[in-house]
Amino acid sequence: MSQALYVVKIGGNVIDNPDACSKFLNDFAQLKGQKILVHGGGKVATQIAAKLQIETQMVDGRRITDKPMLDVVTMVYGGLVNKNLVAQLQAAGSNAIGLTGADGGIIRSVKRPVKTIDYGFVGDIEEVNGQQINALLQSSLVPVIAPLTYSSEGLLLNTNADTMASATAVAMSGFYEVNLIYCFEKKGVLSDPDDDNAVISSLNPQSYADYKESGVINKGMIPKLDNAFAALQAGVAQVTICHADDLAQAVASAAGTRISMQG
Amino acid sequence: MSQALYVVKIGGNVIDNPDACSKFLNDFAQLKGQKILVHGGGKVATQIAAKLQIETQMVDGRRITDKPMLDVVTMVYGGLVNKNLVAQLQAAGSNAIGLTGADGGIIRSVKRPVKTIDYGFVGDIEEVNGQQINALLQSSLVPVIAPLTYSSEGLLLNTNADTMASATAVAMSGFYEVNLIYCFEKKGVLSDPDDDNAVISSLNPQSYADYKESGVINKGMIPKLDNAFAALQAGVAQVTICHADDLAQAVASAAGTRISMQG
Repeated sequence: MSQALYVVKIGGNVIDNPDACSKFLNDFAQLKGQKILVHGGGKVATQIAAKLQIETQMVDGRRITDKPMLDVVTMVYGGLVNKNLVAQLQAAGSNAIGLTGADGGIIRSVKRPVKTIDYGFVGDIEEVNGQQINALLQSSLVPVIAPLTYSSEGLLLNTNADTMASATAVAMSGFYEVNLIYCFEKKGVLSDPDDDNAVISSLNPQSYADYKESGVINKGMIPKLDNAFAALQAGVAQVTICHADDLAQAVASAAGTRISMQG
Repeated sequence: MSQALYVVKIGGNVIDNPDACSKFLNDFAQLKGQKILVHGGGKVATQIAAKLQIETQMVDGRRITDKPMLDVVTMVYGGLVNKNLVAQLQAAGSNAIGLTGADGGIIRSVKRPVKTIDYGFVGDIEEVNGQQINALLQSSLVPVIAPLTYSSEGLLLNTNADTMASATAVAMSGFYEVNLIYCFEKKGVLSDPDDDNAVISSLNPQSYADYKESGVINKGMIPKLDNAFAALQAGVAQVTICHADDLAQAVASAAGTRISMQG
């Protein structure tokens, strides 16, 4: 059995809340063993863009990234958010190293081709350099990855943090037994959307199919879970979905939803 | 004789000029062997601060860094400038990794004590972790260091890039034969301030003393050169001062001013 690795994704809503973020970072710092943090952006980019009089355009919940907006997300995600997470983790005793996909060439992408919508400087991941990431882990470093990648032409590209987390988890599954953990604002996958405590504790392909058929799992949760099962198919050992407050318990299988092929 | 390492410092004036910066990065990428780039900030921080209606206060040429200004320099130096340099170096074939002092805990500082002036969130370097930097170099990475450090309490601190370059060079001299190269807007140390081509090709402690006594070297150059000789005293093999356009020639001793104990 290979060594365990946690790939933890934290969303912008936690980053926007200093107390929740601080608690989360302390829990993350205390996780034993190898780990990687992938973070989202948060509302700060939109706020800074507004102050700089750069208009934020969203299409279907996705940010259109023109050149001025690319500079804002590079500043905010790659600088302000990433470096503050790193400094706080260092103070919590975790030897964090902040990275975009460009750093060490760890995650290379291509600028998304224009079809009906021009998303601008947005990257679709082409390659994760698992060997380079592993070299950092082997130097006792804790990678903290911002939602930016780069193209072989030297462009920085705004990239979805969920996708970066799952692509990283898949690439690292060649080296480790990977548990990909999505921390978000709910306690897990719910069997009743109106009851925040109705957490489904585990899912496998069969129970997922059953929940979908009965309509218990629907809408927004389906693409998330399809992605989780795709990561499992590609070699990730387990995917966990939990509340950011519950990271420590989720790792001990005492909170959140555990998703695996066996289940 | 230990392996050679170049620690190259590039100032804000080159970063502010896309063509000069692009030429410099290509030359830097082609330098054979181990290398580290330390970069300054440039005018972008002041411009972004102005757009965000954050006032820039300078005392004796030094930026006062209150909390809003710290956020700006973290965004601009740690994000916008650093990540664009990294992406361009990756495209030029150099496996760059962008770092602040907080990343990997490579350069720790203390917040400057308030005496007559409160500089705010400004760091005085306490420790450079040469072993960690060496681990990155040994992983075939090229560190690109932004002018920010961190304190053990998890604060990010604005830090002078020249000082970061010399402290890094000194720390790495335990592992390598270090050539510390300051690239700036002049061709080297000049024997005639009105003649840009009157470059003094080499200096040692004796010739430096002579030039000072005769008044040929004076004013602003003296603290720079005192720092260069202090780095040599602390183990750095050579300090080179040259124009950013001349990096390749300076490394071949065909441009700039070479400063060493023997000279």
